[in-house]
Amino acid sequence: MKRTIVTIGREYGSGGQVIGKMLAERLGVPFYDKRLIAMAAQESGLSEEYITRHEETKTSSLIYNIYFDATNLPLNDQLFIAQSEVIRRVAEEGPCVIVGRCADYVLREREDCLHVFVHAPLADRMRRVVEEYGLEADNVQAHVLKHDKGRAAYHNRFTPNKWGDSKNYHVALNSNLGYNAIVDALEILAKSREGNQ
Amino acid sequence: MKRTIVTIGREYGSGGQVIGKMLAERLGVPFYDKRLIAMAAQESGLSEEYITRHEETKTSSLIYNIYFDATNLPLNDQLFIAQSEVIRRVAEEGPCVIVGRCADYVLREREDCLHVFVHAPLADRMRRVVEEYGLEADNVQAHVLKHDKGRAAYHNRFTPNKWGDSKNYHVALNSNLGYNAIVDALEILAKSREGNQ
Repeated sequence: MKRTIVTIGREYGSGGQVIGKMLAERLGVPFYDKRLIAMAAQESGLSEEYITRHEETKTSSLIYNIYFDATNLPLNDQLFIAQSEVIRRVAEEGPCVIVGRCADYVLREREDCLHVFVHAPLADRMRRVVEEYGLEADNVQAHVLKHDKGRAAYHNRFTPNKWGDSKNYHVALNSNLGYNAIVDALEILAKSREGNQ
Repeated sequence: MKRTIVTIGREYGSGGQVIGKMLAERLGVPFYDKRLIAMAAQESGLSEEYITRHEETKTSSLIYNIYFDATNLPLNDQLFIAQSEVIRRVAEEGPCVIVGRCADYVLREREDCLHVFVHAPLADRMRRVVEEYGLEADNVQAHVLKHDKGRAAYHNRFTPNKWGDSKNYHVALNSNLGYNAIVDALEILAKSREGNQ
């Protein structure tokens, strides 16, 4: 019986990363997000600072046209390719939870995945980034919307799927249901998927 | 502690109705779908035959313009209003599972609801309507798509929300996860919601 790989896409401030960490602990499997960047950086030779700065932000058309390197691909595309390779490698190694990085699309051919999307109403996400993430910003709404826009653009640039469209995920959840209940539900769905392999 | 009212929207052939029935049995609460039509018919004075024929099908603009009655509202609008009244009444009576009829939107002001959407890839829904529903049709794909179109048009006519958009539901699920696992997960989420009242 193969154990399930869980990918989690999430709106900014929805708590999707926290849910991912909790679920990985519950399932006793590795959790990947920023670690992926470091691993991708090592593989691609791109500096970690560059990657952190540009991760999940679609390159503007101007920069897109300027930043070509010897491989004739924009750095952002190189980064996506490198990260996708890392995602495929860690998935090959065994069950895990992967947050962000279009992992749902990168691993679309695998049958042993549970693809999850976490969302929440804007007002709740604004509250969460202040209370839980400790954000100090003059305009919290603009901050949240900017991050959403970046994630949607990143996903829509590198995949044919619409970011957050329920049909692209096995399960999409409003995080206001509560982290604990969501982790309980996802554990059931992940384990059920194992039975279907 | 108030117990949860579950509304389920679903793509045609996704098995959402079966899941709704199973969940209602699990929770020990009433299940409403066709029964609602009968109740609505009694309330509105519209014939049950008319309602069955027109339920969840957006009236074409021609019919829309022709079928005005004494109240100056098209029959389809009268039907929606009557069904909405029934939905509000049964929700007021206590916890239940309601499939279809824009119940998610009709009950949007209530805090004690869990709004669910069930979907599945087209190929799986085509298989399901033949194998599970026993449909005999020359063109199964056209049959499924026609029903989807009708449901989407109905929802999009009577609500400002986009049918099936994950953001309008607490949880959206691909029924390929399996009916039993989904009912287990929904039971957890419904009960967790009770604790939040």
